[in-house]
Amino acid sequence: MFVYADNAATTAVSKKVVDAMLPYFTEVYGNPSSLYSVGQKAKEVLEESREKVAAILGAKPREIYFTSGGSEADNQAIMSAAKAGAKKGKKHIISSKFEHHAVLHTLQALEKEGFEITLVDVHENGVVDPKEIEDAIREDTALVTIMYANNEIGTIQPIAEIGRICREKKVWFHTDAVQAISHVHINVEEQNIDMLSISAHKFHGPKGVGVLYVKGGIPVSNVIYGGAQERGKRAGTENLAGIVGLTVALEDAVANIDANNQHLAPLQERLIQGLSQIPYSELNGDRHTRVTSNVNFCFEGIEGESLLLLLDDKGVAVSSGSACTSGSLDPSHVLLAIGRPHEVAHGSLRISLGEDATEEQVDYIIKSVAEVIEYLRSFSPFWGDLISGKRNHVFAEHKEIA
Amino acid sequence: MFVYADNAATTAVSKKVVDAMLPYFTEVYGNPSSLYSVGQKAKEVLEESREKVAAILGAKPREIYFTSGGSEADNQAIMSAAKAGAKKGKKHIISSKFEHHAVLHTLQALEKEGFEITLVDVHENGVVDPKEIEDAIREDTALVTIMYANNEIGTIQPIAEIGRICREKKVWFHTDAVQAISHVHINVEEQNIDMLSISAHKFHGPKGVGVLYVKGGIPVSNVIYGGAQERGKRAGTENLAGIVGLTVALEDAVANIDANNQHLAPLQERLIQGLSQIPYSELNGDRHTRVTSNVNFCFEGIEGESLLLLLDDKGVAVSSGSACTSGSLDPSHVLLAIGRPHEVAHGSLRISLGEDATEEQVDYIIKSVAEVIEYLRSFSPFWGDLISGKRNHVFAEHKEIA
Ligand SMILES: Cc1ncc(COP(=O)(O)O)c(C=O)c1O
Ligand SMILES: Cc1ncc(COP(=O)(O)O)c(C=O)c1O
Repeated sequence: MFVYADNAATTAVSKKVVDAMLPYFTEVYGNPSSLYSVGQKAKEVLEESREKVAAILGAKPREIYFTSGGSEADNQAIMSAAKAGAKKGKKHIISSKFEHHAVLHTLQALEKEGFEITLVDVHENGVVDPKEIEDAIREDTALVTIMYANNEIGTIQPIAEIGRICREKKVWFHTDAVQAISHVHINVEEQNIDMLSISAHKFHGPKGVGVLYVKGGIPVSNVIYGGAQERGKRAGTENLAGIVGLTVALEDAVANIDANNQHLAPLQERLIQGLSQIPYSELNGDRHTRVTSNVNFCFEGIEGESLLLLLDDKGVAVSSGSACTSGSLDPSHVLLAIGRPHEVAHGSLRISLGEDATEEQVDYIIKSVAEVIEYLRSFSPFWGDLISGKRNHVFAEHKEIA
Repeated sequence: MFVYADNAATTAVSKKVVDAMLPYFTEVYGNPSSLYSVGQKAKEVLEESREKVAAILGAKPREIYFTSGGSEADNQAIMSAAKAGAKKGKKHIISSKFEHHAVLHTLQALEKEGFEITLVDVHENGVVDPKEIEDAIREDTALVTIMYANNEIGTIQPIAEIGRICREKKVWFHTDAVQAISHVHINVEEQNIDMLSISAHKFHGPKGVGVLYVKGGIPVSNVIYGGAQERGKRAGTENLAGIVGLTVALEDAVANIDANNQHLAPLQERLIQGLSQIPYSELNGDRHTRVTSNVNFCFEGIEGESLLLLLDDKGVAVSSGSACTSGSLDPSHVLLAIGRPHEVAHGSLRISLGEDATEEQVDYIIKSVAEVIEYLRSFSPFWGDLISGKRNHVFAEHKEIA
């Protein structure tokens, strides 16, 4: 059996999306900035896409900027707020400890330029407390940026409430909704969101295209300077095939949120119950306040990398907070942020189901994980130390999951 | 007849390229940063693409960064050199007056941050004089950036010579080769190029993907911060379909440079001779030092926009330096840079042939342009003033083209 259960990393482009994109490679290939008909047809489709995306998000077309993905959108949101803030002497930004690196590394770059960054704690359940954000807001706060759903543990943040606080305090609020948009109903107007980022490849669209929403009135700065595309705020010939792909994928994803959640919730429950039978394991992040596709566990005495590789042998494609091809051996900053000690943070497993996941697949995942864990523990010196009492357990042998 | 003759704006994606991309949407869709097989397969293809692009440019794979297009590559090259330069107190950059806006607007942003920018003149023939660049180099010069071929008038710059001067003076040299790569043989090693930008959609690849080459040893700064992709220098899940498309298109384009030039040179000649029969017209840019696809003319007493729209009615898709959907009515900065007065710069026409252009198409373009010019002049008050002698002509009635 082959089960792709790493949909939080990326998804396959749907056939419908590929079909929708194809004409824009070979037929309507004109440059949308050109005056002649093939260009104007492209321009029309570009603006129709913008209108559709805007309608889905509860925004106005003028508030939608197409980017090369989620990372660029995050960078541009934060850099825009920082530049506008700095002009008014506001050089303080609030975020959280478990944001995506597209946010954290941008904030680090700003720190070097003299910005002060407050990263609020994330509670053990993987949720940020709006009260802590409220308390962190200062006179010179330019921006609050908190992700909508976390990419590793899937926990959903109280975005509308944080938005309400920011509105009240007159501080701009950005949310990285890359992991949320296909799982949660989002409306920027109702949820007091000033800026929002999404990325097509997380919901069966193509890689290399995303959206930045910025509420009218907030000044947008360029991350990429050049031509007059995207109302002068994002230079570069528009990737129209990608934009059409994003739009079709987004329409599909959002239309099916409820049906998908209904289908996935029992599978998620089954997966959680099944994996929690493995001794000395624990679910990461709140049981309920999480996207229905995500299950994330820590296992004592396990190295995430070996776990993945052996699961791959069994045809199960999943990821681990500690799996890192960048050569770093640091455990996931997300798991550390929710208070997991280093030694268990290393042994984490993220399963992110596709919408077409089946019970059979879930059972196969559970069986495979259980087998691999047992095998890995059978020769792990670390596990030996736990068993022999040389080391103390972090987790209980079994934990009831409510 | 329909003739698409705006290949400098963008090109249709070739069928071969589309076919090469397709598997990366729906089959090899894994995230190249993932450890399991579908991810590793993607990673392999990514690195193979990097090797192929490097080999074509005469670079090492580690010197190749995939970006979202030519604009991003230009921005990153300039910003990287600026940051590294600033650290050593070098805050002076040399460029030319007729660069693409992706370069000029990035330089303007740096100017606001305290950089000093010298824009050397472009001669009437559309070529920059290396001697002027040499003279402009100072102790605190961080970068010289000169485009390889101009996007409006197609003139080719003495890049190897400028590169030699920069090497000698120990100043980094970037070239925007977006308009040159498919027309001229480029080898970064032989031509002393330190940084180079290209964009796939200019040579029958997809929009939204480009390459930045940076010679090893030159520090690269992020334009987009986040994940560890592209050796930490360009965050965002890799657009593998796009990268594969770029690579296949680049291989094809470069392999066919000589054949295409051989095919296009006589067509270019025919087009130039044909259009120069129109009274009070002149070719823009040197007759010989230009890419074989490009022909650019100014016509007295003509508004570029009307010219395009009427040519569009006849099925001829071309562009004009003065056609600008950004709402600006400024004439082309390129034509002004080569010394065209405002009134003729407004009446320019850029024809950029595809590799499959035919004599029949060229003749149809000539006929259509001649008809439209005659028609437009028949009721132009400006033309009336020229004819009646109220205004002086800028051009001779007929100019021999050598
Ligand atoms: C010379 C030149 N540089 C840069 C660019 C920008 O490339 P892209 O539109 O892929 O960002 C273009 C084309 O628009 C160009 O002609
Ligand atoms: C929460 C979150 N933000 C941002 C990104 C970056 O998106 P992209 O890879 O499209 O740049 C990702 C995915 O990698 C993500 O999960």
